[in-house]
Amino acid sequence: MIPYATRIESMAETAAIVGGLFKSMTDPSIISFGGGAPAAEALPTELMGQLCQKIFAPGGRGVEALQYGPVPGVADLRRAVAEQLLRPKGVECDPANILIVSGGLEGIYLTCQAFINPGDVILVESPTFVHTVEIFDMVQAKCVAVQTDDDGLNMEALEAAIREHHPKMIYTIPTFQNPSGRTLSREKRERVAQLAEEYDVLVLEDDPYRDIRYSGEDLPPIKVFDQTDHVILANSFSKIFSPGSRLGYVLASPDVIEKLTHVKSATNSHTAMLPQLLCAEFFNGGYFPEHHARICGIYRQRRDTMLAAIDRCFPEGTKHTLPDGGLFTWAELPMGIDTTALLPKAVENHVAYVAGEGFFVERDGRGKNCMRLSFGANTPERIEDGIARLGDLLKSAL
Amino acid sequence: MIPYATRIESMAETAAIVGGLFKSMTDPSIISFGGGAPAAEALPTELMGQLCQKIFAPGGRGVEALQYGPVPGVADLRRAVAEQLLRPKGVECDPANILIVSGGLEGIYLTCQAFINPGDVILVESPTFVHTVEIFDMVQAKCVAVQTDDDGLNMEALEAAIREHHPKMIYTIPTFQNPSGRTLSREKRERVAQLAEEYDVLVLEDDPYRDIRYSGEDLPPIKVFDQTDHVILANSFSKIFSPGSRLGYVLASPDVIEKLTHVKSATNSHTAMLPQLLCAEFFNGGYFPEHHARICGIYRQRRDTMLAAIDRCFPEGTKHTLPDGGLFTWAELPMGIDTTALLPKAVENHVAYVAGEGFFVERDGRGKNCMRLSFGANTPERIEDGIARLGDLLKSAL
Repeated sequence: MIPYATRIESMAETAAIVGGLFKSMTDPSIISFGGGAPAAEALPTELMGQLCQKIFAPGGRGVEALQYGPVPGVADLRRAVAEQLLRPKGVECDPANILIVSGGLEGIYLTCQAFINPGDVILVESPTFVHTVEIFDMVQAKCVAVQTDDDGLNMEALEAAIREHHPKMIYTIPTFQNPSGRTLSREKRERVAQLAEEYDVLVLEDDPYRDIRYSGEDLPPIKVFDQTDHVILANSFSKIFSPGSRLGYVLASPDVIEKLTHVKSATNSHTAMLPQLLCAEFFNGGYFPEHHARICGIYRQRRDTMLAAIDRCFPEGTKHTLPDGGLFTWAELPMGIDTTALLPKAVENHVAYVAGEGFFVERDGRGKNCMRLSFGANTPERIEDGIARLGDLLKSAL
Repeated sequence: MIPYATRIESMAETAAIVGGLFKSMTDPSIISFGGGAPAAEALPTELMGQLCQKIFAPGGRGVEALQYGPVPGVADLRRAVAEQLLRPKGVECDPANILIVSGGLEGIYLTCQAFINPGDVILVESPTFVHTVEIFDMVQAKCVAVQTDDDGLNMEALEAAIREHHPKMIYTIPTFQNPSGRTLSREKRERVAQLAEEYDVLVLEDDPYRDIRYSGEDLPPIKVFDQTDHVILANSFSKIFSPGSRLGYVLASPDVIEKLTHVKSATNSHTAMLPQLLCAEFFNGGYFPEHHARICGIYRQRRDTMLAAIDRCFPEGTKHTLPDGGLFTWAELPMGIDTTALLPKAVENHVAYVAGEGFFVERDGRGKNCMRLSFGANTPERIEDGIARLGDLLKSAL
C-alpha cells in the first residue's frame, strides 16, 4: 500500500462533511433543503437545446466546441463577463482581467494554489462554506474563524485576527453568504478593502449569489474599493445559468491572471468548450435579462414561503436570517437541539437539511443547534410541507 | 504585491515551455506540426449536433445536463468506460474503479495531489511530455529522467534509477509516446508492473493514444499485469472523441478512487455534465466503432504521408521513429542543427513544429537537434508542403 500525500490526511475530516452534504439529494421522496442546487424550473433547458442547434448548425461553432481551446477561456465569454456582469457593478476591467474556470469553486482552488503555502493562515467567516474549507485543507492552510454579525464579518474581530495571525488571505462570501444568507454592509466592504491594503493581506471575494437578489439595495463588490490589487473576485455561473456546466470566472490583475492560467493549464488544460460557447451565446444573444427576472421571481416566492413557514412551524425561540437573495437561510434553534443527531430522524420523516456544525472551522461544537436550509430546489408546496414536518420533529425533540 | 506560493516559482520554467507549445497553432497561414490537436475532420461534429437534440428533447436528459451531478462522474459513462474501453483490453474492472475527470491531464493532476509530497521523486521517460512535467513541478516533485530505447523505457536504467532515487512514482506513456511516438514492448510492460511491486513504487500509466492504432499488434495496458494495485491508469477522450469536451478517466482501486474523488471535489466539484452525457450517448448509442474506423483511416494516411515526406525531404543522417499509432513522430536531425533557434525562421516560412529540448527534464541541452512533429491536424497535401519547406530550411541550416 503506497502512502497518500500528507494533504490527503489534512482533507479527511472536511471531505467526510462535504460528502455528507450531497446525500439525500437524489431521493425524490425526500424533501431536501440540503444542497444548494437551483430549481430544475430555474434552468434554461429549452433555450440550451436551441443554442446547441445553433452551435452545431452548418457554419456554426461546432468544431470550436469540440476542439482544444484557449487556456484563459473563450474570448467572447470573457468579454461578456467584463461588459455585462462586472462593469455594470462599477468594476473597472477588461477581458485580460478575466479567467474562465470550471465552476466558481475552481477559481478559489486556483487562487489557493497560486498563493497559499502549507501553514499559511486564511481568515474565514464563522460560519463559512465547508466546501471551500476542503480546498484550504488541501493546500494545508490553517483556517482561523472570525466572528460575524447580522451584516457580516465583525470589523474589530477581523482587524484583531489580522494582527494576531498575520494571515495570507481573508476569505469572504459577502453577499447572501453560504451558509448564513447574511450580507456584508457597504461600509464594511470598503473597510475590508482598506484593511487588506493596510496589512498587505489578500482578499478572496467569493460572490456566487450576488446576481440573484430579490429585495434590498444592490451593493458594490469589495473589489470596487480595491485600489491596490489586494482583492481577487471569484464568481460562478451556477446560480444564474447552470451548475452542471461547471463555469465560473476569476477577476484579478493581469499578472495574477497569468499565474492562475499556469495553474489552470497544469490542472486540466482549459475549461470545457461547449458549456463555454453555450454560456457566451446565452449572454451575447441577450437571453440573460429575461431569464434572470424569471428565476428571481421563482426564488423570491420560495424564500418568502420558507421564512413564513419557519415562523409558523418551528419551536419558539428559533431565530433565522432574512436573506435579500441567494438560496439559504440559517436557523438557530433553541439550545439543546442537536441538528447533527436529529438528521437521520428527519430523513426517516422524508425531509433533510444540512446540520450547522460542519460550517464552523472552530470544530468546538459550535453550530450544533443550527441548520442551513435551502429554499431553492423545492416548490412552495413542498417547502410548506417539509418545514411543517421539520417543525414537528424539532418540537418533539425539545 | 503579495508573494505567490513557492510552487509557482517551481512551475515558471515549464509553464513558459508549455505556453510556447500552443503558439502558431491558430494562424491558418502556418502549417503547424506543433500541437497535438486532432484533425477537425476527425471530430464527430455533425453527430454531436444530433445527440444534443436528443438530450434536450422533451423527456430527454436536459435537466441532468444542466444540474449538479455526481462527483465521480455520470454512471452510464463510467459503465461505458469499464465495459467498452477497458474490459476488451483484459483489464478487470467495474464502474467503482472509474473516476470521470476533466481531461486526461486532470487524471494525472489528481493522482499527483493524492500521492506526491514536495521533494518526492518521479521517474519520467527521456524525453517525456512537458505538459505533465508542469503538474509535477506544481506538486514540487523532483523529476529524474530514465533512458529510453526504441521500445520504450530501458529496463536496466529503470531499475538502477529506482534503487538510486527511491521514487514515489514512475510516469510512463507506454503507447505511441508523446513526444517520441515509441511503444513499450509487451515484455517491458510486464516487467514495469513487476518492478513496481518489488520496489513498492506507484506507476502512473498515461495512455491517451492507445486507441488510435494504425498498424502492428495491440498490446495490453501495464495495468493488466498489476496484481497489487501499484498501477493507476489515466486516459483521455481527447483523441477518440473530442479534446474540447475535456473528458478523461482514471482507473484505480476503489480506495484510490475515493481519495481522488476528494481531490476532484476540492478542485472543481465534478466534470461538466453536458460533455459527459454526449460522450455517454456516443458510446452507448453504438457510434464509436464506425467513428473509430474513420479517424484511424484519416490518421494512418497522414502518418504514412509524413514519414515518406521526411525520408524524401529531410537532410541525410536524419532519424525518425515509426509510430504504429498516435499523432507524433520524433525526428533526430544531424548534430549542429538547433531546433529551438531555428523555430522563428520556420514560422517565417509558414511552418511550425515543437523543438525537442523542452521534452527533456535533464535540461542539459539534450534534444537540441530534435523536433516533435504531429501528423494529426493537417491534410496530406499540407503535410507534403510543410515537410518540404522544413526540409529546405534544415538543409540550408547545415
